[in-house]
Amino acid sequence: MASRLYCRCLAARSNVWGSIQGGRGLVTQAATAKRSLDEFEPSGPRMKTAVPGPLSLDLQKQLGEIQNVQSLNFFCDYEESRGNYLVDVDGNCMLDVYMQIASIPIGYNHPALMSIMTNPRNLSSFVNRPATGMLPPRSFTEKLLDGLLSVAPKGMKRVQTMACGSCSNENAYKGIFIWYRTKQRGHSDPTPEETVTSVINQAPGCPDLSILSFMGGFHGRTLGCLSTTHTKAIQKLDVPSFDWPIAPYPKLRYPLDQYARENAQEESRCLEEVEDLIVKWEKKGKPVAGIVIEPIQAEGGDNYASFDFYRKLRAIAKKHGSAFLVDEVQTGGGATGLFWAHEHWGLDDPADMVSFSKKMLTGGFFYKDEFQPDKPMRIFNTWMGDPTRNMFLSEVLKVIKQDNLLDQVKRTGHVMLNGLYDLQARYPHLLSRARGLGTFCAIDVKDEDSRNKLILKARNKGVVMGGCGTQSIRFRPALVFKEHHAHLFLSIFNDALAEMK
Amino acid sequence: MASRLYCRCLAARSNVWGSIQGGRGLVTQAATAKRSLDEFEPSGPRMKTAVPGPLSLDLQKQLGEIQNVQSLNFFCDYEESRGNYLVDVDGNCMLDVYMQIASIPIGYNHPALMSIMTNPRNLSSFVNRPATGMLPPRSFTEKLLDGLLSVAPKGMKRVQTMACGSCSNENAYKGIFIWYRTKQRGHSDPTPEETVTSVINQAPGCPDLSILSFMGGFHGRTLGCLSTTHTKAIQKLDVPSFDWPIAPYPKLRYPLDQYARENAQEESRCLEEVEDLIVKWEKKGKPVAGIVIEPIQAEGGDNYASFDFYRKLRAIAKKHGSAFLVDEVQTGGGATGLFWAHEHWGLDDPADMVSFSKKMLTGGFFYKDEFQPDKPMRIFNTWMGDPTRNMFLSEVLKVIKQDNLLDQVKRTGHVMLNGLYDLQARYPHLLSRARGLGTFCAIDVKDEDSRNKLILKARNKGVVMGGCGTQSIRFRPALVFKEHHAHLFLSIFNDALAEMK
Repeated sequence: MASRLYCRCLAARSNVWGSIQGGRGLVTQAATAKRSLDEFEPSGPRMKTAVPGPLSLDLQKQLGEIQNVQSLNFFCDYEESRGNYLVDVDGNCMLDVYMQIASIPIGYNHPALMSIMTNPRNLSSFVNRPATGMLPPRSFTEKLLDGLLSVAPKGMKRVQTMACGSCSNENAYKGIFIWYRTKQRGHSDPTPEETVTSVINQAPGCPDLSILSFMGGFHGRTLGCLSTTHTKAIQKLDVPSFDWPIAPYPKLRYPLDQYARENAQEESRCLEEVEDLIVKWEKKGKPVAGIVIEPIQAEGGDNYASFDFYRKLRAIAKKHGSAFLVDEVQTGGGATGLFWAHEHWGLDDPADMVSFSKKMLTGGFFYKDEFQPDKPMRIFNTWMGDPTRNMFLSEVLKVIKQDNLLDQVKRTGHVMLNGLYDLQARYPHLLSRARGLGTFCAIDVKDEDSRNKLILKARNKGVVMGGCGTQSIRFRPALVFKEHHAHLFLSIFNDALAEMK
Repeated sequence: MASRLYCRCLAARSNVWGSIQGGRGLVTQAATAKRSLDEFEPSGPRMKTAVPGPLSLDLQKQLGEIQNVQSLNFFCDYEESRGNYLVDVDGNCMLDVYMQIASIPIGYNHPALMSIMTNPRNLSSFVNRPATGMLPPRSFTEKLLDGLLSVAPKGMKRVQTMACGSCSNENAYKGIFIWYRTKQRGHSDPTPEETVTSVINQAPGCPDLSILSFMGGFHGRTLGCLSTTHTKAIQKLDVPSFDWPIAPYPKLRYPLDQYARENAQEESRCLEEVEDLIVKWEKKGKPVAGIVIEPIQAEGGDNYASFDFYRKLRAIAKKHGSAFLVDEVQTGGGATGLFWAHEHWGLDDPADMVSFSKKMLTGGFFYKDEFQPDKPMRIFNTWMGDPTRNMFLSEVLKVIKQDNLLDQVKRTGHVMLNGLYDLQARYPHLLSRARGLGTFCAIDVKDEDSRNKLILKARNKGVVMGGCGTQSIRFRPALVFKEHHAHLFLSIFNDALAEMK
């Protein structure tokens, strides 16, 4: 297979990109907005320098005077980027299968999104950012209905927008705590003692409640979220944490079909531990008000558990009166082939709350009616999201529907995963554990160093990838990543692998 | 004075607003961009209905199906709003002295900001939101230098942008904890024990460090910030909190000149308590890594302490090796007559970190060199701010400079505060404790109910105000609020007061 792909790659490299690259007619292009993606974007990478190139390195040095730049990859020319192709300031054009840490839903400069910018009626929304909790713009409700509510998870008719993923989870946790205490009290009116103690950080006003999370889970980096994040030490080191219970997440053995029995046992063990922890923390006086989990542990290494595991976990939450919060910040928005990854579980009542950000362009969380505080200002801040992000999201959802992008994701995902299986068979000393749902795929490299080398090698060949966990590569292409992009990617990835010792 | 103002108000109400209101030529207006504010905005309020009007009420009912709407005031027509005037969906045009909870720096639809939207080269920045920590846009450094760094507080050459005020403080706290532990260790490399324990929320990896805050302080609503927020019970009730020390904030008696001795004693008492708490929490095994404070407690009721109090507090922080974080989320950006409120203290080394948001349009924090973690990804998230907000801020700063808006603020502030003194003398049974720096003014009403009634009464007469604390009204006009706006405001406020029983 690899040689077939390699030919396709060579063909792709002699393409029409040159003629697009010189142009500045992005807005005009957007105004017509009807050209197909294939005409709009280049048909393959074109590399001019090593990455980062000299211009990126110059800019990096300047930025280093202002910030820590050790995490910086390179500087980008977003104006010149198109569809699945990211262009850097040195003029290198790369196929992007990482897409700004999984946060670009339909590619760079999509004409549908650019057309929002060319409608004069929309522009004042960008200039006047409102305090949406007090003074929302006229179209606020309409855009929520058009956008977020049109893809609301099962059982949820309510949503609160927030600025980013961490804020979304922080506020979802708060919603859970308020719900839990209201339930305990039987009503929402605090005692005088609760009122007084809450202001000075003490119980019973600030009760010792907890959120149960999983080893390897990632839910953000602010102090509440960080107490539920357990991926890398560097993310948590030196920061005080709440004493909240952490359950083991199943460590599945691959290939899955060979280890069905062992994996089922492993999942049972983890679920038992969840129940033990709930009982233990209740006894400790820190009851588990909620459980938070990702449908696929992304940052933690693209770790999967079976749909059955999640169904049983949801039942455990219900049995113990804990809220069940599904964190779809990275998995949500269609990349798994369904709009929400938790839909794969096939449950009628899969969650009490679902948080999102990244590809949804706005942060926020959906919630069941009972999770709405019955007093104002309990979940509140100055901006609570940004109506312009809701406006973009409405367009994105239209494009997803019109272009049947979820079907596209399933087709491309099939190519991606089969291609990864092939490469893993071809390079068994380097690759293992190819896995994925839709285009949300990953593969392990033999060790961290090789993983990092491979990513850099592929980048210099024109593919932008990202790592996760200790030794995985995660693939997070946009929803407009088609079969031919997958073939092209696999071919270049094969080239990079062939050069690895 | 009040009768003079009343005449001015009547004159203002028969103005040219009608001719502007019908127009849709905002973008065209913006393109010319050189008209003065006085031509651009209406010259007075014009009310068509009670507020909220029937259209707002309809929209509120719809939104109520999606969110808690008890904090909602009314729906706005941001496209029709101009300068200091906010227009609602029912066509009411109101003088806005609250400005989206102090977050609009130079008024609605300022031509300089609209002109950003009419430059085709800028538009792709809105459509492609980058992961700035890894893949910043070409102009990222330049916009930081043009913008945030051009107004960096004394002693700071570094800045990290964030999405909102809460995230800014959360990450500033993390920066403080990392700095403190690095200092304790003598280097930044963790022991194996720290590495292992950090991932599971335990010491020594997640150490028991604390941030000292003040009663009445407000620093945001996410779980770390909320542990340092002590304003209203409703904001904190039911949410778990860190056990961090809370010092008393001086309760000054007004008029200040009559109570100089008592107030000095009160401030000494509070400073002594700060030192006691630092020693006590050190003994408790939860050392105070940092102190966070607002230069004026805004949300908590516009509470002031003397500049001398802050100078002494800064010295205490230094003496005990605690970082000193000044939260300028609400005070920053010029409303006090200086760009940062802490500049009033007149210190060479006023702070180690300064956080901001609101009028700065982007969240973030400035920090001294020693507060930069020497490893990547310690302060990190997907977006880390938004380059389009930096772009707007650069324009805002240009306007502030070109139009000498800080001088304007001082002049208008003088009118405002003197006007509030006059009204307080005229309505001593209703008003007290008029206070302010620049246009950042406040006044107390006799009780909470009367305060809330007065705000609604004034709103129906065409002025949008906001409350703070239990019984205060805070004035947070934009920097383009001129003397004549202040006169007009005072006149309408006087009308509302005259109708209060």
